[in-house]
Amino acid sequence: MVNITPKSSTLRKAVAQAIVKVSLPETILAIRNHTVPKGDVLECARVAGLFAAKRTADMIPDCHPLPIEFTSVNYEVGDMEIKILVEIHTIYKTGVEVEAMHAASVVALTMYDMLKPIDKGVSIEQIKLLEKRGGKSDRQGNLG
Amino acid sequence: MVNITPKSSTLRKAVAQAIVKVSLPETILAIRNHTVPKGDVLECARVAGLFAAKRTADMIPDCHPLPIEFTSVNYEVGDMEIKILVEIHTIYKTGVEVEAMHAASVVALTMYDMLKPIDKGVSIEQIKLLEKRGGKSDRQGNLG
Amino acid sequence: MVNITPKSSTLRKAVAQAIVKVSLPETILAIRNHTVPKGDVLECARVAGLFAAKRTADMIPDCHPLPIEFTSVNYEVGDMEIKILVEIHTIYKTGVEVEAMHAASVVALTMYDMLKPIDKGVSIEQIKLLEKRGGKSDRQGNLG
Amino acid sequence: MVNITPKSSTLRKAVAQAIVKVSLPETILAIRNHTVPKGDVLECARVAGLFAAKRTADMIPDCHPLPIEFTSVNYEVGDMEIKILVEIHTIYKTGVEVEAMHAASVVALTMYDMLKPIDKGVSIEQIKLLEKRGGKSDRQGNLG
Amino acid sequence: MVNITPKSSTLRKAVAQAIVKVSLPETILAIRNHTVPKGDVLECARVAGLFAAKRTADMIPDCHPLPIEFTSVNYEVGDMEIKILVEIHTIYKTGVEVEAMHAASVVALTMYDMLKPIDKGVSIEQIKLLEKRGGKSDRQGNLG
Amino acid sequence: MVNITPKSSTLRKAVAQAIVKVSLPETILAIRNHTVPKGDVLECARVAGLFAAKRTADMIPDCHPLPIEFTSVNYEVGDMEIKILVEIHTIYKTGVEVEAMHAASVVALTMYDMLKPIDKGVSIEQIKLLEKRGGKSDRQGNLG
Repeated sequence: MVNITPKSSTLRKAVAQAIVKVSLPETILAIRNHTVPKGDVLECARVAGLFAAKRTADMIPDCHPLPIEFTSVNYEVGDMEIKILVEIHTIYKTGVEVEAMHAASVVALTMYDMLKPIDKGVSIEQIKLLEKRGGKSDRQGNLG
Repeated sequence: MVNITPKSSTLRKAVAQAIVKVSLPETILAIRNHTVPKGDVLECARVAGLFAAKRTADMIPDCHPLPIEFTSVNYEVGDMEIKILVEIHTIYKTGVEVEAMHAASVVALTMYDMLKPIDKGVSIEQIKLLEKRGGKSDRQGNLG
Repeated sequence: MVNITPKSSTLRKAVAQAIVKVSLPETILAIRNHTVPKGDVLECARVAGLFAAKRTADMIPDCHPLPIEFTSVNYEVGDMEIKILVEIHTIYKTGVEVEAMHAASVVALTMYDMLKPIDKGVSIEQIKLLEKRGGKSDRQGNLG
Repeated sequence: MVNITPKSSTLRKAVAQAIVKVSLPETILAIRNHTVPKGDVLECARVAGLFAAKRTADMIPDCHPLPIEFTSVNYEVGDMEIKILVEIHTIYKTGVEVEAMHAASVVALTMYDMLKPIDKGVSIEQIKLLEKRGGKSDRQGNLG
Repeated sequence: MVNITPKSSTLRKAVAQAIVKVSLPETILAIRNHTVPKGDVLECARVAGLFAAKRTADMIPDCHPLPIEFTSVNYEVGDMEIKILVEIHTIYKTGVEVEAMHAASVVALTMYDMLKPIDKGVSIEQIKLLEKRGGKSDRQGNLG
Repeated sequence: MVNITPKSSTLRKAVAQAIVKVSLPETILAIRNHTVPKGDVLECARVAGLFAAKRTADMIPDCHPLPIEFTSVNYEVGDMEIKILVEIHTIYKTGVEVEAMHAASVVALTMYDMLKPIDKGVSIEQIKLLEKRGGKSDRQGNLG
């Protein structure tokens, strides 16, 4: 585990995405209309993502436990896929990109689990970091 | 949560994959040569996957807690990517596909976390179920 | 911890309730209309309850870990209160009443937490077992 | 999850209560005399409460993980009920009232679980916040 | 992780010990007289051990999650040391010796933590398996 | 739980050891040659130790949750024993000695679990604090 005792706490932000692909247009409809039998997919998966963000250090060996001070889970619902966007902020000595990616993956897995009774062809694609702010290796964007 | 009390316990198997793409050939070399500063990437990520398999019901709302009776984590190391293969077995009333996908995603995230100091372009692709055996919706293959 | 090795596994069910009292009629309206800023209160609290049911043995010293095979969280929304009803089933050697009460309490606490920005007078009342089936001390009802 | 990055850390305190009602005077006697078969009820429940305080963010979706810097669990033992009082302190950007209520509820549930072999009529009443200090919405007290 | 799907469930028992050595006779006295400031050492440590037994698979990579069906924590209090004895039973496909040793170690660590304000010379010795029953490699004793 | 709100955050370090004794020279050889069937013992146990360090407050009742900012797990491999050395750093109001001892014990238990198929005579000895820096009761050494 990297020694972060010498680092100073600064505001750090990360945005990660995961994409859930469905195989039937009816699946997206069922999500939109709240008719998936297991519950409200977007809201349930959002809650699972809030928990996952907070438990990243429990799952990834070298992640430092850190104060998650903001998490949002947003969705872009397309015709045959849903893009999950997780944004996390902390004021600490190390960034939150793995936390954001972990939360995004758990949001995606929760969707997969809720959708599999109605769509056998769901897959998860491209879990990746979109933006990172506040450490020495800032990236991209317009996260501001 | 689906009521599984009426179901009978049978042997169930699932194999899931995740793919980790790197942006530099040196990254694969560092993994092979055990020179990644954070440790032995494949072995560390395997251990994280063993834990993740067991903790799936803690992370995914509708997953039933179940007796994970076998987990293996294997790798196919390519020139610019690593394919992670997780296989899980149980004798229980419901399958282990989400467990296998969850473990595969945590293996991939652990790799990402261990590799990011040496490669800023790592991404995770295609977390998906490859095979499933033992429930009413068997799929594909040669898992037996 | 009670020794349950000599017991036989049978279907066991429990229903527990918790009551959340609000201090403003607008609070109930905000819940019904999905306008509470922190999210969909009933759905979020239901997800928290699903997790809590599964983690009872992690929180209560003498509770045996057991296969939660069904959990439902339902609500009766009144003018100034919400009655939470949690039902849990297992086929195991010991009952699930503490699991149901624990889940009900976490559902109630999640509501409290989500509502406190809009209503400072929320309280939690009467966490209790309503019905129990399948062990030697069956109680009440029409659960069957 | 509310964004607390702009907030400043201050000393925050909360006191919450839960009430456990028994149905037999012998139950209180057994607690006082340490003759409850499952163990020393007040001490066991206190330990469960210490753990619960620390794990609130694991159970309640929007709770921020925070440094629990003090927890006490005290009891007022009456003739037919026990009042549980949990006090928690932190120096952080958000309060600890849900933490105190969560711990109080787990203390109460542990008592319920330990007492049910000797008293089938135990219930949990009135989990509520008694005092709160240090945020913008101070309340009541002489918590000093 | 060893594949236990082909194994049959049988009653399995394990007894493990840990020894806590103190450096002052007053320490043992304080334990016996319940005057240790942090609480009732033997009872608190027993509760921590009950939880630890149930969470072994969360801590040890290759341990299978299994139904802990009985746990007892007992003590032999000597003049300058305390012998901790943890016994665990399950009816399952694999034994509980690591569970018993893990619980014994957490009981010992809890004592250490509670005693360190009054005795700087506490150490933990000899965490080991005393007896094992029910698998192919039965050992020793009179556990029956 | 001790009230640490009045304390100031300083750099704190602790080093703890655990000793794993084997009964056969072949066991040490198998570890060195990476031929233990369950995996790379030293690396797996190291990962388990990283997680354990972070989860100490989940296992030990009075331990405060704290920001683990550095953990290392090192080994001195002898002819018939392995000395485990865990070092942890934090900048916080209380020390990390129990964290270091807890991590050392989990490293040792993981080794025991991985080695028991090939050596029935493994035991764990002497879990103890070697050095402590940064609180009011500094001890020993050359930890610098």
